Order: sequence, then structure tokens, then C-alpha cells
Amino acid sequence: MLKVDSLDEFLKETKDKIDAYIFDFLPQAHERVEVRRLYEMMGDYPMRSGKRLRPALCLLICEAFGGNPEDAFNTAAALELLQNWLLIHDDIEDGSDLRRGQPCLHQKYGIPMAINVGDALHCKMWELLHRNAERLGYELAFQILSEFTRLSNQVVEGQHIELSWVSNNRWNLNEEDYWTMCVQKTAWYTCITPCRLGAMIAGATKEVVDEFLEIGMNLGVAFQLQDDVLNLIGEVGQYGKEIAGDISEGKRTLVLIHLFNSCTKAEALRVIEIMDKPRANKRADEIQEVSRLMEKYKSIAYAQERSKALARKAYARFNQEFAELPDTRARDLFLQLIHFVIEREY
Amino acid sequence: MLKVDSLDEFLKETKDKIDAYIFDFLPQAHERVEVRRLYEMMGDYPMRSGKRLRPALCLLICEAFGGNPEDAFNTAAALELLQNWLLIHDDIEDGSDLRRGQPCLHQKYGIPMAINVGDALHCKMWELLHRNAERLGYELAFQILSEFTRLSNQVVEGQHIELSWVSNNRWNLNEEDYWTMCVQKTAWYTCITPCRLGAMIAGATKEVVDEFLEIGMNLGVAFQLQDDVLNLIGEVGQYGKEIAGDISEGKRTLVLIHLFNSCTKAEALRVIEIMDKPRANKRADEIQEVSRLMEKYKSIAYAQERSKALARKAYARFNQEFAELPDTRARDLFLQLIHFVIEREY
Repeated sequence: MLKVDSLDEFLKETKDKIDAYIFDFLPQAHERVEVRRLYEMMGDYPMRSGKRLRPALCLLICEAFGGNPEDAFNTAAALELLQNWLLIHDDIEDGSDLRRGQPCLHQKYGIPMAINVGDALHCKMWELLHRNAERLGYELAFQILSEFTRLSNQVVEGQHIELSWVSNNRWNLNEEDYWTMCVQKTAWYTCITPCRLGAMIAGATKEVVDEFLEIGMNLGVAFQLQDDVLNLIGEVGQYGKEIAGDISEGKRTLVLIHLFNSCTKAEALRVIEIMDKPRANKRADEIQEVSRLMEKYKSIAYAQERSKALARKAYARFNQEFAELPDTRARDLFLQLIHFVIEREY
Repeated sequence: MLKVDSLDEFLKETKDKIDAYIFDFLPQAHERVEVRRLYEMMGDYPMRSGKRLRPALCLLICEAFGGNPEDAFNTAAALELLQNWLLIHDDIEDGSDLRRGQPCLHQKYGIPMAINVGDALHCKMWELLHRNAERLGYELAFQILSEFTRLSNQVVEGQHIELSWVSNNRWNLNEEDYWTMCVQKTAWYTCITPCRLGAMIAGATKEVVDEFLEIGMNLGVAFQLQDDVLNLIGEVGQYGKEIAGDISEGKRTLVLIHLFNSCTKAEALRVIEIMDKPRANKRADEIQEVSRLMEKYKSIAYAQERSKALARKAYARFNQEFAELPDTRARDLFLQLIHFVIEREY
């Protein structure tokens, strides 16, 4: 049972416990020095700061639906490993520089090794999931594996959609395009699956589990929108990534789509000219130029409003569909977590 | 029951059936054009020519040990998917140009997309393995999953060892270093696990399954040595990779280790000077220079001899340990396959 008083405390406790569990699970000692170095690299991203939001969602929903969060713990840790191998590969694919306040893995060790470290963590994720059989039995363990394969299919498709836009220099995107990409790339693994898994492990019905498709979709996109906003206005120390890095990387965000829908044709052409340049050729004043246009047309504020509206929708739907749910600490913290998603500054 | 007469026929039939099964399993249709493109890319490597050696080993051992190869078919296909995602990522990590006679995936679509396509196939491999539960029951399906996690750990470690040597410009390697790397990187997924899985699915005892550790290790290294030899003396049309591509890529092979052990100090320094150059800076005459030294010191013949000796060892051990095994067509084809591993020209 939850003993903590505040969301902050819960997140901190979850982080400590998940980190310790993953640290314990990942291999450490090996007779060959090369392999010991691999193990160090595998621990690099998992040991960096971060919110551990996905495990938190899974554990809270499990408890809110009457389950024992201890039963969900191994799965929650696997969600964190998922996040880590995805980030390592994403950072290479997007040509990113910073992650959680430190150079990206491929910046530290080169692309070849970083790809392999991502693969190593990917394999470890499945290994961790197999452990579920012992505590939860084969049937539930298999159901959880199926959720992970479903989610994996979503996330690679979402990632491919985004990479296609970059590779084809495609800018004529509408909000629906963004929505599709964002749901597949981010919402599934950030919110939909963590909540579904929590409910599933608590023994909830299929109807309850499926309810988290829509709730998780709205919450997940809200999360990403807030991330995009923080990328533009955050502080690097807190946010942990390069500020306006999305402009450097030429990322298609809702902020940008709003800007294209609002600005003049001449401005749009200028923005595309800047965005299309390879990262290394983008000057700081050009990045600022795009950023200033985003402010001028209130595109950042627009994304922030959309983020809030989506989170409110998730909140309302949860309260409406699960009105009968006992008023527990876990339920309360889950609702607080919805607020945190849109209010957070990191 | 096997109805084919020759190994050639068996390999052809296996290839056709495995390819059709994988083609059927991989997704095809999607409303979004970007996702359809991803599906095409996912089918690229699996549909290229190739030997389907790993599925063949798994199916033959299953039948030789009294199992129904139909029970092993899904797992055999997963071994082929494993090979495909590994190759996509390896080709990026090694900076390769050609694979199975065509440009590598990252040469066709860029590194970001190729990483993601590899991840997509990696996820599909686990998805395929989960299908085993239906036909084989939870317990055996889980045992098979465990074999795959064990194998994955080996393969990423082997890959990391090799990448470390490249990244650290390390050349003072002995045969034992090569052996360790090669067993982990190649033998496990090429021979050890395919054979173990075949036996496991046939219901063999743990003792029998574990016997394939040593047999598979010897056979797997024999396979890789023959591959290294073909890389130097093969014909590109048959072999499917760039001839002497290993020299271009600066790969640490047993051929090279033998050369270092045999040549003069001045020659060794010259070889290192050439091998250490970035691929793009290596001239054709420099590659030939290394290649000629390998011939001068009979390093290629040495690797070929070692390959044959290891295959003979695997052959003898199999016959010795499994002398009681009924004299079936499957057993006979497996023994023929051992010969094929070292005699093949592709």
C-alpha cells in the first residue's frame, strides 16, 4: 500500500526503487574488459536522471484498480528499459546532442557501439518480461508480452512516419498527421500501454483495460506537446536537452504546424529554408528567427493550450468511466500525475 | 517426414517454405503510405537470397531427434528474423556496402531508417516466438524464449568485443581472443541455438540439448572461418558481399591474426597502417597488398584448414555422442550440412 503523501514523494520513491531494481538486473561483472565496458554503457541511460513516468503510471493504475503494485513492479521496470533502448536509437536517428543533461550515448561512444548497446537493452527488456511467469503465471505473463509486441509495432511505425517526413523534406502536414505520428510514436509507450498493463495486472476486465486506449492517447499526446513546448522555452539544466534542439533537428511539431497555418507565405518559405538545412549549418540567429516567429504567432501558447485540453479530457474521461473506483491514495496520485504531465518543467 | 533426396533440395525447400511463412507473417497493407514503405523495408533483407542455414539446422535436428519439424517451424522462422535484424544493424556498425548481392539497407535508405527497420524486425521476432504458446504450450514456449534471451546476450557481447577492437585500433590479438569473439558473435546464433532449439522441441533431455554447446561452437566457428575465406577468395556474384570487404572494413579475422604471427615486423606495421585507414581512404592496391601477404604466408589456407578441422570435430562428436540415434534421412542431411558449411562457395 502507498505510504507517501505527495506525488513528488511517490515519483522519487518510484525512481529509487526502479533504478535499484534495474541496476540489480543488468549485468555487472565479466572477465573480459571489453564486455565490462559494454555493461557500463548499458547502465548509462538507465542511471541518468529522469521522471520514471511510465513505471509510475503502471504502478498507480495497478493499485488504483485493486491490484498489488508489487505484482506490476517487474513490468514497470521493463517499461523503463523500453524507454532507454528507444531513446538510445532515437537519439542516433534524430542526430541529437544531449539527453538528460549529458551527451547522447552515440556522442560518447560512436554510432556503432550505441546501436549495439540499444539492442542489448532491448533484449534485456524481453528477458525481464519473461521473469513475470514466475510470479504471475504463464497466462498473464504471456498477455503482458503481447501488450509489449503490440506497443512495439506502434512505436516503430510512429518513428518511421517521423523519419519519412524528415527524409522527404515534407512540411505540408496537418494536425491529423501530427496526431497519428504522436499517438504511435509517443502515446502508446508513454501512457496507453503503462496504464493498460497496470489494469491488466490488477485483474481488471478487458473493457476497463481498453478504456485506457483513449485516456492514454489523450494523455500521451498532452505529454508530448508539453515536451515540445519545454524544448522551446525550458531551461537546459532542468529539461536536460538542448533548448530549441527540435528546431536544430528539423522536428515536425504541432508548434511548427500551427506556425505554418498562421504565418505569411514568405515567412513560411523562410522557415522551411532554415528548417531544411542540415543541423551543422544552422546558425544560432536562424534558430532564433524561427523561435521568434513561433512566439509572434502564439504557436507555443497554442500547443500548450492543446496539451492542457487533452489532459483535461483524459482526466474527465477517467473520472466518468471509473466513477465507482474507490477513493484511494493511488487513484488520487494518478489524477495528480495527469496535472503533472502538463505542468511539469522538466 | 522428409521427402527430399539431397541437401540441395532440402535447403531449397526450406528456403521456400520459410520465406513464404515470413512473408505471410510480416505486415503488408496500411492506409498510410509512410507505413507501407516501412513494411516494404522490413521485407527487404528477409526476401533477399541466402542459405536459410539456421532454420535448416533447427528443423533437421528436431526431426533427427524424433520430433515433428512442423512443431519447430515457427521457431525456425524466428531464427531467420533474428539473422535479418542482426544483419541490418551489423551492416551499419561495420560500415558495409553489400549484403546478399545488393546494397545494404542503410545504403538504400540512410542510417536512421535502417536502425528503425532493424528494430521493427527485432520486435517481430519476439512476436513470432509468442505464437509458439498456441501449438507448443506455455512451458515449452517459455523455454524457447529463454534460449533466445540467452543467445541475444551472447550476440550483443560478441558484437561489442569486435567493435571495441576496431574503435581502440587493437591489433595484438591472439587466436583465443578471436575464438571468444567468434563463438559469442556468430556460433551461438548460427549453430548452437538452432540445434539446441531443434532438440528441445523434439523433447530431448537437457543433457542432449547441452551437447550442442560444443558441437555448435565448433561448427559455428568453422562456418565463420569459411565465411572469412570466401570474403577473400570468393566471387561477388555468388558470395553476395564485396570481395576483400573485410580488409576494407578493417575486420579482425583469424586469417589476419595468422598473418601477424607469420610475417616480418616491417610487414606487420605496413598491414596495420593499411588496415587502420578509414575505409574510404583505402586504395585498391593497398587492399591487394594485404591480400597478397595473406597468400604469401598461407594465412587463408590456414584458416581453411582450421575450419575443416573444427567441422570434423563437430562431426565426430555428433556421431560419438549420438551413436544410438536412428539412421534417418534428417540425421544424414544434418551430417551433410556439416560438410556444406566448410565446402560452400556462398
